[in-house]
Amino acid sequence: MEQSFAISGIRLGTACAGIKHPNHPDLVVIEVSSGTLATAVFTSNAFCAAPVVVARMHLAVAKPRYLIINTGNANSGTGQQGLEDAEAICQVLADRVCCLPEEILPFSTGVIGEPLPLVRLVNGLPSALSNLRSEGWYDAALGIMTTDTRPKCVSKRATLGSREVTVTGIAKGAGMIRPDMATLLAFVATDAIIEESALHQVLVDAVSDSFNAITVDGDTSTNDACILLATGQAGVTVHAVGAEYRLFASMVRDVCIDLAREIILDGEGATKFITVQVEGGMNIAECRQVAYTIAHSPLIKTAFFASDPNLGRILAAVGRSGLADLKMDYTSIYLDNLCIFFNGSRSPGYTEEQGQRIMQQSEIMIRVELGRGESKARIWTTDLSIDYVRINAEYRT
Amino acid sequence: MEQSFAISGIRLGTACAGIKHPNHPDLVVIEVSSGTLATAVFTSNAFCAAPVVVARMHLAVAKPRYLIINTGNANSGTGQQGLEDAEAICQVLADRVCCLPEEILPFSTGVIGEPLPLVRLVNGLPSALSNLRSEGWYDAALGIMTTDTRPKCVSKRATLGSREVTVTGIAKGAGMIRPDMATLLAFVATDAIIEESALHQVLVDAVSDSFNAITVDGDTSTNDACILLATGQAGVTVHAVGAEYRLFASMVRDVCIDLAREIILDGEGATKFITVQVEGGMNIAECRQVAYTIAHSPLIKTAFFASDPNLGRILAAVGRSGLADLKMDYTSIYLDNLCIFFNGSRSPGYTEEQGQRIMQQSEIMIRVELGRGESKARIWTTDLSIDYVRINAEYRT
Repeated sequence: MEQSFAISGIRLGTACAGIKHPNHPDLVVIEVSSGTLATAVFTSNAFCAAPVVVARMHLAVAKPRYLIINTGNANSGTGQQGLEDAEAICQVLADRVCCLPEEILPFSTGVIGEPLPLVRLVNGLPSALSNLRSEGWYDAALGIMTTDTRPKCVSKRATLGSREVTVTGIAKGAGMIRPDMATLLAFVATDAIIEESALHQVLVDAVSDSFNAITVDGDTSTNDACILLATGQAGVTVHAVGAEYRLFASMVRDVCIDLAREIILDGEGATKFITVQVEGGMNIAECRQVAYTIAHSPLIKTAFFASDPNLGRILAAVGRSGLADLKMDYTSIYLDNLCIFFNGSRSPGYTEEQGQRIMQQSEIMIRVELGRGESKARIWTTDLSIDYVRINAEYRT
Repeated sequence: MEQSFAISGIRLGTACAGIKHPNHPDLVVIEVSSGTLATAVFTSNAFCAAPVVVARMHLAVAKPRYLIINTGNANSGTGQQGLEDAEAICQVLADRVCCLPEEILPFSTGVIGEPLPLVRLVNGLPSALSNLRSEGWYDAALGIMTTDTRPKCVSKRATLGSREVTVTGIAKGAGMIRPDMATLLAFVATDAIIEESALHQVLVDAVSDSFNAITVDGDTSTNDACILLATGQAGVTVHAVGAEYRLFASMVRDVCIDLAREIILDGEGATKFITVQVEGGMNIAECRQVAYTIAHSPLIKTAFFASDPNLGRILAAVGRSGLADLKMDYTSIYLDNLCIFFNGSRSPGYTEEQGQRIMQQSEIMIRVELGRGESKARIWTTDLSIDYVRINAEYRT
């Protein structure tokens, strides 16, 4: 775990509210100083959860002062009651801290389709508020975990002009990961001063290369959200163009990429970290389409688990990925730098032993060359292990 | 296993050619009487295998007299050499039986990306030819198995006019099953007389409701093919319209549906037979899209394995299935006849115990009502078990 730097203007508090299990951190409150800018991306799932609906509405009308996050219950598929519950927890917190309910953003993650245990959240609030502190990032990362086996917390610091700027973020997620707009839950903050539209662009670009480029199981959650907060308290202004913007954007991007990598490394049952890179496509969209077809194939994922260089399964996945006029004769496939399939046939010098050696590594790059253009795309995924099935078969029991 | 009726004009022979394992039936020859009509559907995978390319070409220029099928090697991803090997085995067989190589259709299934062991196939031919017999269907079903745990052979007989007509079919497939034009390999034959275009329509309609409505893992093979042969030797003519056509078409459809169900029941590691029915869609395509999203979700498949009525996972899959303007408030979900989610919320009277009781059955129907139209679609799939991972992790070792 990297050291996490505090962000001036942000305090985090965590509590055990007993939402699903007793004595287990499951409630996090993030306090945000007045004047902080916030921008967010949310799930593209048509059935987005009640807290996503409410957070989106609140963000549209007010700058947030508090974020409240619970695990153990997603408040999703809960109809009108779910919306009322999400509004109610905002109202209760607003009353305690003397702000407007619209200044509060609610987030939930956990089991879908069960009513939010509102009373437990309310009862847990005082404890979360009483331990608010700017060094609370790591504990908050612990507090938002569900099937995660370890907290995900990343921090970057750089000098812009003559002053230091910090970006710190936390994320959770191990299953139901195939974000289409963001990952399950990620909270990133900086002390830089930056315009709202530029801040949003920084987030969108960062998410595109990080949380939107990972998949564990192809399942887009109903609760995905990624928030970027800018408190402005470092006194450093980042303008919307120029070298400082690029440096700042790369800091946010690096935090998001590191968090996204952490999510894949901690993917449910994962024993391998797989990079799928597709090159030579006519556009990025078709490269991503081939990459996701590979990354979602249960046959390929089990082959990675078994360290089996099963060329045929990769070939079949590329072929069925839906690209018009795809030619096997122009297609080549590499494991790391080893060519296993070259222009339509098994690579002449290739032996299974060579392939197996690479497949036994804990990090593997599979690279597909389509030979029909200049575009490329890269995504990260996991293998499919016996433990994946075990974890998901036992999740609610 | 149902009784399989012979088809006058068809003889089948099986041999152990030692393609992958010794003393294991892996080579099948089907002899087809002169004048037999044949129609086929093949895989939609862009990287179709060499035998698919050759069978398609041969079928276009001649009526088949022999089909030759090997397991243990798919002759796919084998480039120019693969095409030459597929042509070579046709030539060798043609020389032995005194027909044209174009009158032979080759089929292969097994490992992808390895050269076809042509010499073993050639050496196995005499034995397969020497045991050709019209009662050979069951043995042929055994001879085309790969990871299948049991042979799939179905036979139907009905009286058309005053004479009996028979339809008999065999199929193989347990993994890499998400046929887009047909299943892995299916051979169906009848003794009826029927026009070629009508025969093709019968096959296309039958496949649409059977092999094209099943999925184990979403992986479309490079070798899928389904052949329908009509020897005409029952002396019964089926005209392209009318009650006899409908009866005959339903016989072929029933044979294909039974074979498709057998494939799902024998799906790799399958412990449950799942019917996914999506109703109330604007068209069949969007109903299928939702059904396949559910059927391919590893989270839902593991929940079925665990007998866990995990409403949330189903809900999330419906929501991410990509339908524009889908409304949770009009969506309802049923397990068999039990309503678990009604118009946007968990069904009021529903208890987990009720859901669990149904999830423990070996056959389960999950029904989704979208509330936005009159169309519906139904597909069959399996759960995702620890054994699925084990089987596919160990397949080549």
